[in-house]
Amino acid sequence: MLKAIVLLSGGLDSATSLAIARAEGFVPYAISFRYGQRHRVEIDAARRLAQSLDVADHVIVDIDLRMFGKSALTDAVAVPKNRTLDEMSGGIPVTYVPARNTVFLSFAMAWAETLNAFDIFAGVNALDYAGYPDCRPEYIAAFEIMANLATKATVEGRGRFKIHTPLIHATKAEIICKGLSLGVDYSLTTSCYDPADDGAACGRCDSCILRLQGFLENGIDDPARYRDREHVTP
Amino acid sequence: MLKAIVLLSGGLDSATSLAIARAEGFVPYAISFRYGQRHRVEIDAARRLAQSLDVADHVIVDIDLRMFGKSALTDAVAVPKNRTLDEMSGGIPVTYVPARNTVFLSFAMAWAETLNAFDIFAGVNALDYAGYPDCRPEYIAAFEIMANLATKATVEGRGRFKIHTPLIHATKAEIICKGLSLGVDYSLTTSCYDPADDGAACGRCDSCILRLQGFLENGIDDPARYRDREHVTP
Repeated sequence: MLKAIVLLSGGLDSATSLAIARAEGFVPYAISFRYGQRHRVEIDAARRLAQSLDVADHVIVDIDLRMFGKSALTDAVAVPKNRTLDEMSGGIPVTYVPARNTVFLSFAMAWAETLNAFDIFAGVNALDYAGYPDCRPEYIAAFEIMANLATKATVEGRGRFKIHTPLIHATKAEIICKGLSLGVDYSLTTSCYDPADDGAACGRCDSCILRLQGFLENGIDDPARYRDREHVTP
Repeated sequence: MLKAIVLLSGGLDSATSLAIARAEGFVPYAISFRYGQRHRVEIDAARRLAQSLDVADHVIVDIDLRMFGKSALTDAVAVPKNRTLDEMSGGIPVTYVPARNTVFLSFAMAWAETLNAFDIFAGVNALDYAGYPDCRPEYIAAFEIMANLATKATVEGRGRFKIHTPLIHATKAEIICKGLSLGVDYSLTTSCYDPADDGAACGRCDSCILRLQGFLENGIDDPARYRDREHVTP
């Protein structure tokens, strides 16, 4: 059986991507990052998901992306709340972290090479209104080309890297539907950009709003814990 | 004046690359990495060089590449000694570190974006016999294409990344000649893969041999400190 590296943030998309890697027959090796994010509860979520989805190994990499500029995910910059889908579509948001996916994929590539693995799964999504440049298909394709020129393993012809992005064109509702069919326990995931200290989600940031909408479209309750459930139904 | 990010390892090539960036009119911002390398004296060398070459800022990033497989640069793997140039040409050596330049360039790109800089200098060299895949022009070109799809700054049209590799086709002798003409103080640099605790170079690893040969071809003494000067003349 082939090994695959799976980027696992602890969120809904990466959990689903991990379940898909397993369903496609790969032995999953999960990698998560403590990069200075304010929402560090996601590392705990990643740990629980890795265990629940029975990965072969799970590494948590410490890097500090806070030194590289301000983002609402790493600094005391306000996370936008209560935005409409139209407002979310208005450009790259303050939650953008410079070069984040490139750094993450580079580490994944390093680990893949040492495991003699060539498949990397990333739960990136180009349709989630955010407009993150490093979630687009053309970026992923360019990274893959670069990766295949970068390493001893590929240059020596032992394999070719493939960056799998099974969710890149899916809506949040479709992602949730797929994950449920694969048995993902979404109560273990966390999506909020601005959770309380105890991990409870705000229900008002872009990420919460899209998530809640996705569950609503599937006709089921979001099992995540919210600070104030009364006020979060989209 | 335009800012440029300069990868600064503390070695001869990156010091020269930094001097070239200055000579071309860029304001240099140096970035170095503590990645688990055994030869950590190079971080001290990078600090001295950054000061000597008057950079606008110097950041040292902590990452641990040791978790991703063994390399003679990060683990208790013997560094090859006393190899001929023919032996050095025989494939990618044990000093290869998986995905190292991709990780380094990714961090450089993150910093560049936050500084609104689009020029990155890397002292990579494709002619130094090592055959590192991530020192080849085709790899650098692919990274540049990927970088221009990866960030908010480029997608919003504020600029286009250029990865400058002024030394990629130069011999070690040519690099030294260029650096001397720009006033680089090579006594501040360290190249050895296996230095003593006090930083003295071994004089026998591939990197020392190529360096010594480069100074010899320029008809001058290498100002680096060697453990046993009698035995190191190539």
